[in-house]
Amino acid sequence: MNELRKHIEEVTSITDEEFDYIKTFFTEKKVKKHQYLLQDGDKVSLEYWIIKGIFRAFYIDKEGKEHIVQFALENWWLSDYNAFFNEKESGINIVCMEDAEVLCLTLSGREQLAAELHKMEHFFRMKLTKGYSAQQCRIISLLSNNPKKRYEEFASLYPNIMQKIPKKYIAEYLGVSRETLSRLYSNY
Amino acid sequence: MNELRKHIEEVTSITDEEFDYIKTFFTEKKVKKHQYLLQDGDKVSLEYWIIKGIFRAFYIDKEGKEHIVQFALENWWLSDYNAFFNEKESGINIVCMEDAEVLCLTLSGREQLAAELHKMEHFFRMKLTKGYSAQQCRIISLLSNNPKKRYEEFASLYPNIMQKIPKKYIAEYLGVSRETLSRLYSNY
Repeated sequence: MNELRKHIEEVTSITDEEFDYIKTFFTEKKVKKHQYLLQDGDKVSLEYWIIKGIFRAFYIDKEGKEHIVQFALENWWLSDYNAFFNEKESGINIVCMEDAEVLCLTLSGREQLAAELHKMEHFFRMKLTKGYSAQQCRIISLLSNNPKKRYEEFASLYPNIMQKIPKKYIAEYLGVSRETLSRLYSNY
Repeated sequence: MNELRKHIEEVTSITDEEFDYIKTFFTEKKVKKHQYLLQDGDKVSLEYWIIKGIFRAFYIDKEGKEHIVQFALENWWLSDYNAFFNEKESGINIVCMEDAEVLCLTLSGREQLAAELHKMEHFFRMKLTKGYSAQQCRIISLLSNNPKKRYEEFASLYPNIMQKIPKKYIAEYLGVSRETLSRLYSNY
């Protein structure tokens, strides 16, 4: 759990007593490559903080085509947040791409932590602020039909993803062909 | 400012004293139809809460084509949040579509309110939670190339926008032609 404390303290400092309390809300889980953390239609009762490993969140359309919503690596929070926050069934799938360890938190746990500790309310708000900014970039990138710009933004925002994830999936995430991606790579 | 109090109290109850303090952070501004609240390249130092009026946030690509990021009506918070949170220049434009009144808040004001009043930290977190969920829906809708589904989701999420905004802009937001939109309308 020490990684979690470090992660929280990047936003706000906490005492040993506070962390002892905070950690009682989390449970550990190991996830194997190819294992699903969430499947389309599951009731979403947990969010996950990734200690290690890589995940891919994707949406499957009516024609059965997979569209990548996001990747997630260590230190990231992950769930189908629309479903998690609204206590609904998942509309997406989340699959493990590299053996992982995660910490699980329930919605009631999150809300209780935020209500009891102003620091944790602040922490969660700051995380949402970052996530909201990142999603806005993703929306604008999807709206602009410019693969080169999309690629450059992605490469500068997430250099670690570029190194760790097979090109096939990066092409899919960016909505470009493998050939276009190779050309972009070589020009960068 | 009474509308703002009502809006905050939808999330958390506040005392008269608290609201007297909260409102000192806001300034009022009137905006005329066609007036810009924000232009691509402006330093973004404010976020806006809409008392009345309608706005359209859009991104202009390299070819000069406009892509609608979002609409915003009364009770909505609005800014280029990526730029606002990161104190950068705006990447989008926000224009008034119907005479408006807004309340303006600075980033330091938002942070001070959240730090001093746990209730306001909670309020802002809850607003971000909703916004984050809505953005996730928008991303999935953009990823899935299904105009009918996109239309249905939009109509069910934002019935008031459907009534108030010219079809031309709704078609643009959904990324469909005017003809496709008319067909969807008539089938709905």
